[in-house]
Amino acid sequence: MAKSSSQRFSIGVDYGTNSVRALMVDVTDGSEIASSVFNYPSGEAGVLLDPKDPNLARQNPADYIQGFYTSVRQAVAAAKKKKEFQIEQVVGIGIDTTGSTPIPVDRTGTPLALDPKYQKDMAANAWLWKDHTSHAEAAEITAKAAKHKDAYLTKCGGTYSSEWFWSKILHCKRTTPKVFQAAYAWVEMADYIPAFVTGNTDPHTIQRSICAAGHKAMYNDAWDGLPSERFLASLDKDLVAVRRRYANRAVPSDQIAGHLSAATAKKVGLPVDIPVSVGAFDAHMGAVGAGIKRGTLVKIIGTSTCDMMVAPMDQPLVDIPGLCGIVPGSIIPGMYGLEAGQSAVGDIFNWFVSHLAPAEFTAKGDPHANLTRAAEQIQPGASGLLALDWNNGNRTVLVDPLLTGLLVGQTLHTSAPEVYRTLVEATAFGGLTIINRFEEYGVEVKEVINCGGIAEKNPFVMQIYADVCNRPMKISRSAQTCALGAAIFGAVIGGAYKNVEQAQRKMTGVKDKVFRPVKNHAAVYAELYKLYQQLHDAFGKANYRTTLHHVMKDLIAVRNRVRKG
Amino acid sequence: MAKSSSQRFSIGVDYGTNSVRALMVDVTDGSEIASSVFNYPSGEAGVLLDPKDPNLARQNPADYIQGFYTSVRQAVAAAKKKKEFQIEQVVGIGIDTTGSTPIPVDRTGTPLALDPKYQKDMAANAWLWKDHTSHAEAAEITAKAAKHKDAYLTKCGGTYSSEWFWSKILHCKRTTPKVFQAAYAWVEMADYIPAFVTGNTDPHTIQRSICAAGHKAMYNDAWDGLPSERFLASLDKDLVAVRRRYANRAVPSDQIAGHLSAATAKKVGLPVDIPVSVGAFDAHMGAVGAGIKRGTLVKIIGTSTCDMMVAPMDQPLVDIPGLCGIVPGSIIPGMYGLEAGQSAVGDIFNWFVSHLAPAEFTAKGDPHANLTRAAEQIQPGASGLLALDWNNGNRTVLVDPLLTGLLVGQTLHTSAPEVYRTLVEATAFGGLTIINRFEEYGVEVKEVINCGGIAEKNPFVMQIYADVCNRPMKISRSAQTCALGAAIFGAVIGGAYKNVEQAQRKMTGVKDKVFRPVKNHAAVYAELYKLYQQLHDAFGKANYRTTLHHVMKDLIAVRNRVRKG
Repeated sequence: MAKSSSQRFSIGVDYGTNSVRALMVDVTDGSEIASSVFNYPSGEAGVLLDPKDPNLARQNPADYIQGFYTSVRQAVAAAKKKKEFQIEQVVGIGIDTTGSTPIPVDRTGTPLALDPKYQKDMAANAWLWKDHTSHAEAAEITAKAAKHKDAYLTKCGGTYSSEWFWSKILHCKRTTPKVFQAAYAWVEMADYIPAFVTGNTDPHTIQRSICAAGHKAMYNDAWDGLPSERFLASLDKDLVAVRRRYANRAVPSDQIAGHLSAATAKKVGLPVDIPVSVGAFDAHMGAVGAGIKRGTLVKIIGTSTCDMMVAPMDQPLVDIPGLCGIVPGSIIPGMYGLEAGQSAVGDIFNWFVSHLAPAEFTAKGDPHANLTRAAEQIQPGASGLLALDWNNGNRTVLVDPLLTGLLVGQTLHTSAPEVYRTLVEATAFGGLTIINRFEEYGVEVKEVINCGGIAEKNPFVMQIYADVCNRPMKISRSAQTCALGAAIFGAVIGGAYKNVEQAQRKMTGVKDKVFRPVKNHAAVYAELYKLYQQLHDAFGKANYRTTLHHVMKDLIAVRNRVRKG
Repeated sequence: MAKSSSQRFSIGVDYGTNSVRALMVDVTDGSEIASSVFNYPSGEAGVLLDPKDPNLARQNPADYIQGFYTSVRQAVAAAKKKKEFQIEQVVGIGIDTTGSTPIPVDRTGTPLALDPKYQKDMAANAWLWKDHTSHAEAAEITAKAAKHKDAYLTKCGGTYSSEWFWSKILHCKRTTPKVFQAAYAWVEMADYIPAFVTGNTDPHTIQRSICAAGHKAMYNDAWDGLPSERFLASLDKDLVAVRRRYANRAVPSDQIAGHLSAATAKKVGLPVDIPVSVGAFDAHMGAVGAGIKRGTLVKIIGTSTCDMMVAPMDQPLVDIPGLCGIVPGSIIPGMYGLEAGQSAVGDIFNWFVSHLAPAEFTAKGDPHANLTRAAEQIQPGASGLLALDWNNGNRTVLVDPLLTGLLVGQTLHTSAPEVYRTLVEATAFGGLTIINRFEEYGVEVKEVINCGGIAEKNPFVMQIYADVCNRPMKISRSAQTCALGAAIFGAVIGGAYKNVEQAQRKMTGVKDKVFRPVKNHAAVYAELYKLYQQLHDAFGKANYRTTLHHVMKDLIAVRNRVRKG
């Protein structure tokens, strides 16, 4: 509980892929006093692209700085208009960002991209999380790490990704050595922003986030932090220096990164010396904002999903194959943070609407709403269709980007709403596969809280998720869980609460509306899920021999039974 | 060659699913003098439907009679306007129909449906080929026939179909015993029309078509015509009478069914006593009209395909698993007629256009043409997609209606033209599977002649067929091969030619334009076909164990290679 009326507000700053949002929150109940969004001005919707290489995605670090100044200043200004708000009552600032988004910096910690000398070098910018240029380096790191005595890969699901820290740095070395040589150090965006706004960007003393480091830089206390110099040298001898200049130990976000510098304070209209938390990734703080606790799975559902859990550190936790990350303190300090996810969810629905929905559903109004209206009329199993949700690969549990979508069961009468519903069901089956994986390895899922745009706005999808998973689906009360999560860390470091859990109890909650499974829907989906699993394993697992002759016949049998009613 | 100028014209009458076409042909070169189409007035586009049962499809036999009168009368009238035409020079009439389309008739051979007493009984009508109400009876016949000492199923691909003679009659007995008891006999539509127009409908003396009987009624000289009384009695004792009243031996269509009756002649404006050929199924006469001969595969491509070949009877022919029929004389008298086919081809393209094509391709102009224009720009393999062409089951070689479509390889960028092209390719792979099956069993395919609407009008599809099959694709010169085939039989029975082969040499031919395989396209398709075969066997063959993990990866590898160029 907030200790006194002088500790009343905290600020969460949430750096997304296209924009940054600042949220002023009342720490007594988590309610939102004011907010402001700043869209990154560079590139396309904030992303620097290369028409010759669809894998490339960079960002201009200047957008981050400008984004902090503008969004926080505007949120503060808007809060000031509220009677209940007093600027002196702001106790702290929390910051989350996308990631892994490493930035090459000079000796002072200043991004190379801010130096006019490097303005033409794409590699001098921030390497946005979804940059996949380093897939060859990722495969090389996976191959070498798999053979290493320390189980480097066990904490990241068995496969090192092209989206992550070392892959990107190694790719920079190999393809743009000029930038690599000019970079004194590499700093995750989640570390850079708190460092910048508190006026301490020296790579040697910068506070490093355990969330960013643990999931994406193979940082773990079991092997003394980052991977060994010897291992890194086996990839490229120059990576040793990157490790040496990453001086501090990585810590959770209930630690203070620093205090708002006078320069920054002036820019945003806040008092100086407000504490700023160590940064973390958006999904991790989002999980906190959604009320994650032991036994609670938080699903952040957008274009893709993050499926987050925590587990106590006083009990042994076996490594869970296929999880993107298992990192102590990455979500809630003092607990293991477990990160799973689906590579595409909303993106699949959007793909269908953009490319395969007929005019009947797209000519007037929102195509998703139109398709949903028709798809809601279809009983589970009645279409005879089944799909795999792999249009963008599979993050959990197969950890394989080289997978694609599959649709089976089409007849000469299969309709667009039937396919649309089937794609929604496929993402639900993918989500259930993650839940099952957690439970198979001893992490019980007692509750599921959903957040993100689709959870907020799409009861059709949420009901299917409840029916497929045969579990109630709760919805986070806040629509801005990432920024709220960041504000919770701001409240904790500002002293309003003793720890994150205490702050969550006051500042988070779920909506009254809970989606509960319909019994006979759940029964049909249990049958379909068995078939999903068989396709999943047949197409997703190497050397997996099986028979599939029954799949089409079983789908027809279910269809005929359901249609007869 | 036509023997004299007095033997100059013949008439082909082609009964399709929705209409009947009469074609007046010059026997000297097969050119078309006049034609007329009559659309069946009953039901929906000529088909009587039951809103409660999508499997039901019947026809009103009165439409057949009216159709003969109108179409032939109009074709004769149109021909009379041509200078070169003289009515006395008409030498014969050939007739083809859909099938198996059995009709319950009374003691005089009159369809029960023409008796007002039965006008409310759906079962008293003609049971159109695509009526699938008797699927349970078909399964029962297949099961019992499989155990029989005579190899009843070997001539129809190992599975007896719900589309065929005995299934339908047995279903009538079980579900509408009143109609079954009222029916003195059952007559195939292909037998009924020649019988009616020649004034001999007595079930005991009616000429039976070997084409209709051999493919669909399990008629074979190897077991004394129709299946034994004992076998039929094991299904239902009342089927014995159906067999006994099927008195004549079945014969090929170079035999005369009778001569035009005075009553019919008067209705259509032709002299009496013109000979009328024994009937046959449309695809079989269509194959003749397209120029089928030893080594020539005729593909009749429409909503579905028929893939027809002939083989000499002086050499042993092993039974070919998966073929719908192997019948002596069913296509060309004196040769085995081999019938294969794909359950849906044009129907699949139409399904995609109706249900999944976005407004961009459907708003203006012909959606097929719009999609084709875009799909033509896509290189083979570049989409990363692969499909199974089973939206309506698989006729050859799996003979399984309980199969459905499959699409694999979708990403978040997969476009409608990519899917459209993939569906075309899938039907081509299905066609190649039929070619391979013929050749595996010793029936060499030296030439492929295509006919039907898609062959006529769609160079995009034909080029893909050439590339996938790695063979030249020829196109029949006539756009009305079924009616032309019927006219060829009319010419033969009228004495203009000594046999069908001699008539074909004069009356059939292919267009100058031949679609030839493009070498590097064929190479890519050879790779994709291997993957198609693996999916085909995995989903289509019982107890077939396999690994499919490589499928998506191989498709991505081909895609990446092709896109790099």
